[in-house]
Amino acid sequence: LRVIVEGKPTEVRAVWFENNRVKMIDQRILPLEFRVLSFCKCSEVAEAIRNMTIRGAPSIGAAAAYGLTLAALSGENLETAANLLRRTRPTANDLFYAIDYMLHAIASGKDPIAAANAYADAIVEKCKRIGKYGSLLIRNNSKVMTHCNAGALASVDVGTALAPLRVAHDEGKNFFVYVSETRPRLQGMRLTSWELLNEGIPHAIIADAASGHYMKKDVDVIIVGADRIASNGDFANKIGTFEKAVLAKELGIPFYVAAPVSTFDFSIESGEEIPIESRSEDEVTEIEGRRIAPIGASALNPAFDVTPNKYVTSFITEIGILKPSEISELKMKR
Amino acid sequence: LRVIVEGKPTEVRAVWFENNRVKMIDQRILPLEFRVLSFCKCSEVAEAIRNMTIRGAPSIGAAAAYGLTLAALSGENLETAANLLRRTRPTANDLFYAIDYMLHAIASGKDPIAAANAYADAIVEKCKRIGKYGSLLIRNNSKVMTHCNAGALASVDVGTALAPLRVAHDEGKNFFVYVSETRPRLQGMRLTSWELLNEGIPHAIIADAASGHYMKKDVDVIIVGADRIASNGDFANKIGTFEKAVLAKELGIPFYVAAPVSTFDFSIESGEEIPIESRSEDEVTEIEGRRIAPIGASALNPAFDVTPNKYVTSFITEIGILKPSEISELKMKR
Repeated sequence: LRVIVEGKPTEVRAVWFENNRVKMIDQRILPLEFRVLSFCKCSEVAEAIRNMTIRGAPSIGAAAAYGLTLAALSGENLETAANLLRRTRPTANDLFYAIDYMLHAIASGKDPIAAANAYADAIVEKCKRIGKYGSLLIRNNSKVMTHCNAGALASVDVGTALAPLRVAHDEGKNFFVYVSETRPRLQGMRLTSWELLNEGIPHAIIADAASGHYMKKDVDVIIVGADRIASNGDFANKIGTFEKAVLAKELGIPFYVAAPVSTFDFSIESGEEIPIESRSEDEVTEIEGRRIAPIGASALNPAFDVTPNKYVTSFITEIGILKPSEISELKMKR
Repeated sequence: LRVIVEGKPTEVRAVWFENNRVKMIDQRILPLEFRVLSFCKCSEVAEAIRNMTIRGAPSIGAAAAYGLTLAALSGENLETAANLLRRTRPTANDLFYAIDYMLHAIASGKDPIAAANAYADAIVEKCKRIGKYGSLLIRNNSKVMTHCNAGALASVDVGTALAPLRVAHDEGKNFFVYVSETRPRLQGMRLTSWELLNEGIPHAIIADAASGHYMKKDVDVIIVGADRIASNGDFANKIGTFEKAVLAKELGIPFYVAAPVSTFDFSIESGEEIPIESRSEDEVTEIEGRRIAPIGASALNPAFDVTPNKYVTSFITEIGILKPSEISELKMKR
């Protein structure tokens, strides 16, 4: 992704491996500060996933792959390391997918660094394809809405939901993006806006609750990411996605989910089986470390919601644009 | 409303007149600080409405009535004072209603203090009736959702949307309230949660975007306030209301709007005629005075949205519970 560091554009990934270290952009302090962290232990990478230094389903997968690489290089017990990583965050399918991939690769005698790099490179390649398919859905003068950050930061590079925007922008299309801020952690305002600014894509940040207001009059297409997609096409994504999907159906706006096939969890039939992470209520009651809620009040803080398949127009994947009903065919083909 | 000041419960209104001063709770610094401000000029009251020291349609109306009282007592030109007040905020109908009421009362030779007190007392009386009608809609063990603050702070005392909750609580019903935080100004988290805490009503704060998640599985009834209601039952309320109304219809949850008849604007046919206030983008990009958005990013900040009548189950008013279609009959009776 393009980052402007001290006025100079630089190309960097959200996470990579260098000199036997896992490097990652610290996504907690963006956009006002840009800092790259460096880890030499798998347990540090697990903690970085847990505390959301790195987040977004595909980036979490890549970070876990690199974490297991550190474990393999230092001779740690791989099953122990894998279990530590599996317990960091429960919802994103890519985490479990990446861990299984790495355990299999290492057991097959492959070089762990090469295997993890291949995993990360494959994500980027898939995102580029998602971008190509998805850009067909963006017309000149389109008004696009997205939620949270399903950008380069969330998927090593390029992005899932933001990939079609990058490609459409490179193709010279003019369009405008509504970026919902995505409380409580504000990944839309902090991260998506920052990525779009760095690319020069026109956009405005809105409060999450203003989404319906703009959808009623000024949104042509919605593209979001996904953390896990069930066999029937129900999917989990950042809290607030379900609301946008219902509004899109009511208002006749096409609603697309951009995700690599690794996000599909063919082991579950429906979204009811997806575990939803509950995070600390402090993320709601405090902002930037300052208490906003009355003392004694409590909050509920689910990180994701599940959107039933009937609200999804199509999934934009690296193998093409799929209707929810086509996922089960994909499952049978495997 | 019941306020706990230094550990002691005290009864106070959101705005009142005392010793030739307009007094009001400073709603900008709640809940962590409780402060009563005192104004002796109409222009100061106008500024307090504009900067949201006081907010909520009925409270804005009462503040304007007291502001005109100050103008009358000091011999200011009343039309000039009225125009200053009319320009503070464009959406709430009560502001214009209260100003016309006061100009008429003063022109008829009534004592301005008595007229303004009568106006404020009448709001409180109407809110109590709204509470009685509305409490019929809350059953034992109900899960209720509200948005923003349509409480005592917003309507001199008792509240509009919160009045049914106060009455149901006094009647001994057990129920639980989902309070959506209401970005950008967080009136749900700051004010509604504070009012419910002071009354001992069980509740939890949620991010606005989590509303749909809880509505899907755990909400029995939604009650919100209104800033202006058109003749056809379309209504304006805090940004985010429209989304909840659409979700309620999709999920089969009754959606009620609690408001005194003074909120009805019979001069307009539909919600399309309601002016929507755009507020500063800093309210979105900064929180507690700290910049969160990337430097160079911009935001859009509509303070209200308009919900079409088809999403409203009923209006809870001081004259009873009305279907949207019954508003035009009310108009003809006037």
